Amino acid sequence: MAMTPAPKSLSEVHDLIAKFPGLDADAAMAAEMREPSLTKPPGSLGRLEEVAHWLASWQGRHPAKVEAPQVIVFAANHGVSAQGVSAYPPEVTAQMVSNFEHGGAAINQISHAADATMKVVDVGVTEGTQDFSTGPAMTEESFCNAFGQGMAAVNVSTDLLAVGEMGIGNTTTAAALSHALHGGTAETWTGAGTGVEGAALANKVRVVGESVALHKAETNDPLDLFRRLGGLELVAIAGAITRARLERIPVLLDGYVCTAAAAPLAAAAANALDHCLAGHVSAEPGHTHLLEKLGKVPLLDLNMRLGEASGAAVAIALVKMATAYHSGMATFDEAGVTDKNESP
Amino acid sequence: MAMTPAPKSLSEVHDLIAKFPGLDADAAMAAEMREPSLTKPPGSLGRLEEVAHWLASWQGRHPAKVEAPQVIVFAANHGVSAQGVSAYPPEVTAQMVSNFEHGGAAINQISHAADATMKVVDVGVTEGTQDFSTGPAMTEESFCNAFGQGMAAVNVSTDLLAVGEMGIGNTTTAAALSHALHGGTAETWTGAGTGVEGAALANKVRVVGESVALHKAETNDPLDLFRRLGGLELVAIAGAITRARLERIPVLLDGYVCTAAAAPLAAAAANALDHCLAGHVSAEPGHTHLLEKLGKVPLLDLNMRLGEASGAAVAIALVKMATAYHSGMATFDEAGVTDKNESP
Repeated sequence: MAMTPAPKSLSEVHDLIAKFPGLDADAAMAAEMREPSLTKPPGSLGRLEEVAHWLASWQGRHPAKVEAPQVIVFAANHGVSAQGVSAYPPEVTAQMVSNFEHGGAAINQISHAADATMKVVDVGVTEGTQDFSTGPAMTEESFCNAFGQGMAAVNVSTDLLAVGEMGIGNTTTAAALSHALHGGTAETWTGAGTGVEGAALANKVRVVGESVALHKAETNDPLDLFRRLGGLELVAIAGAITRARLERIPVLLDGYVCTAAAAPLAAAAANALDHCLAGHVSAEPGHTHLLEKLGKVPLLDLNMRLGEASGAAVAIALVKMATAYHSGMATFDEAGVTDKNESP
Repeated sequence: MAMTPAPKSLSEVHDLIAKFPGLDADAAMAAEMREPSLTKPPGSLGRLEEVAHWLASWQGRHPAKVEAPQVIVFAANHGVSAQGVSAYPPEVTAQMVSNFEHGGAAINQISHAADATMKVVDVGVTEGTQDFSTGPAMTEESFCNAFGQGMAAVNVSTDLLAVGEMGIGNTTTAAALSHALHGGTAETWTGAGTGVEGAALANKVRVVGESVALHKAETNDPLDLFRRLGGLELVAIAGAITRARLERIPVLLDGYVCTAAAAPLAAAAANALDHCLAGHVSAEPGHTHLLEKLGKVPLLDLNMRLGEASGAAVAIALVKMATAYHSGMATFDEAGVTDKNESP
């Protein structure tokens, strides 16, 4: 398939999302048909069964395989950091990008343990976004540029994509975007992030609430809200999720920031995230609310809140196990095991 | 270390449990000391941090490693099956043992995906136990024999053990044992197992309640209740857990039946399961109650209810990721990343 060109306007992004392909009905049916023949009580592998079927449906092949998983961490800085919303200074973003490049971060080790390739893509560590508490975070041009970088980062020969982010200040961005898209109060969506509390947390809540009020007065379009209240690494994640859909690559979402990056796609078209599973639920309370709004039940709940695609990458192991059992198990006939569901 | 001889009486099992070694304080301290130096916000890997520390503490070395995990499935039949408590006939146990031996079961595929060795040990498929609804399930001699087989099955060079079971009728055994040890009502502890419902489930509840009443009238000793209401594969699991403790091998528990097999050890000595983590929580409701009684929080909640060590074996992947990040990550100093916790 020729690569879909990167969109040049928010309107072109809308057009792309509206034309997202659906699941592969033949592969989905083949997975459904095989399941009850396997030597186990029906349904006894629980969510692993759902994962096996999801993988086949969105890879568009049965048996599905996970042989070349890819982890991508998008990194950028946030103008809103100037409002004192993070426990760490913005220079940590660049330091952590270097740490990713040298293999020293958690995601390097977790990706290795998952036999996944991992890369970090700098989509705006130096330039960052504008401070959205005073104006739009980015122009339409910079939005489309980051979206295109996200699309281009996906290796088309991968069979499972885990996406994540690094960006000091970006739980503030996630909170603002979630609040803008899904209503409620700023408090509901705003948490400790890397570790703000007390007066600093109250300030973060205030910044989120006032910023959302500022931009919601201008638009209700989910992609324009994304441009106004998003971050470059979040937009790149949305681009990667979009490219994965077009290339039949199932996606594992990471934590709050990653899910907030996916949320505008779902707001633009209800089925836009059907090829995505929530790898885990973060300890950041806003993530629980956002997953509920998106109708996603996370695979893992390990009280993690690091980001960096770490929760999504841990979940790669579960997807591998799902495809392993579904493809490799013997059927009742093959094993000579009595099936209670068969007539004698 | 010379192998501890298998106990020859319930009293010798009590003595063995009473002398269980504790965790390795040096390894535990080394893990605690390294954690805050790693390039991430404190606590941000959630339960993976707890798992990394647990592994070091019970392997007795830092850094801990998971290079040779072992999965053992113990199989046996249950006299109580004659009471019509299972949706499958007892011959399925032998058929599934053959399926394990030929690589066709879910646990074969999941173990392979976890890079673990896997073996099935027949501890009483042909002979089974006596029907505990009318008398004790086994003699003290057969109890000790199964316990010794469990001890002997553990490969002493393994560094992480996942245990599980196969035995038609054994959720009835798990329910009876849990009810005997932890009180409550028979309904609380009795679930669908491989798929009984309606009148068959009501019959299963009745059998559990009446059997527990019968044997509780004779003893309150947890090991004697285990002999009376247990199964040979459950006793073998308890033997394997015991051997693992003595050999400094951390253990992942599987579902309801496996946890019920571990419960008498905890009833005999409160700290007896400190080297064990709950790999997952089963869809069988009694498992949730039993984990609460034992103070264990499961790593995974995937609605699985297969047994066969499947949930424990899936959790091996999480333990690997925990040890990978803890051992492999760079420190703030090594990576040149600003640590908010350090004074400037």
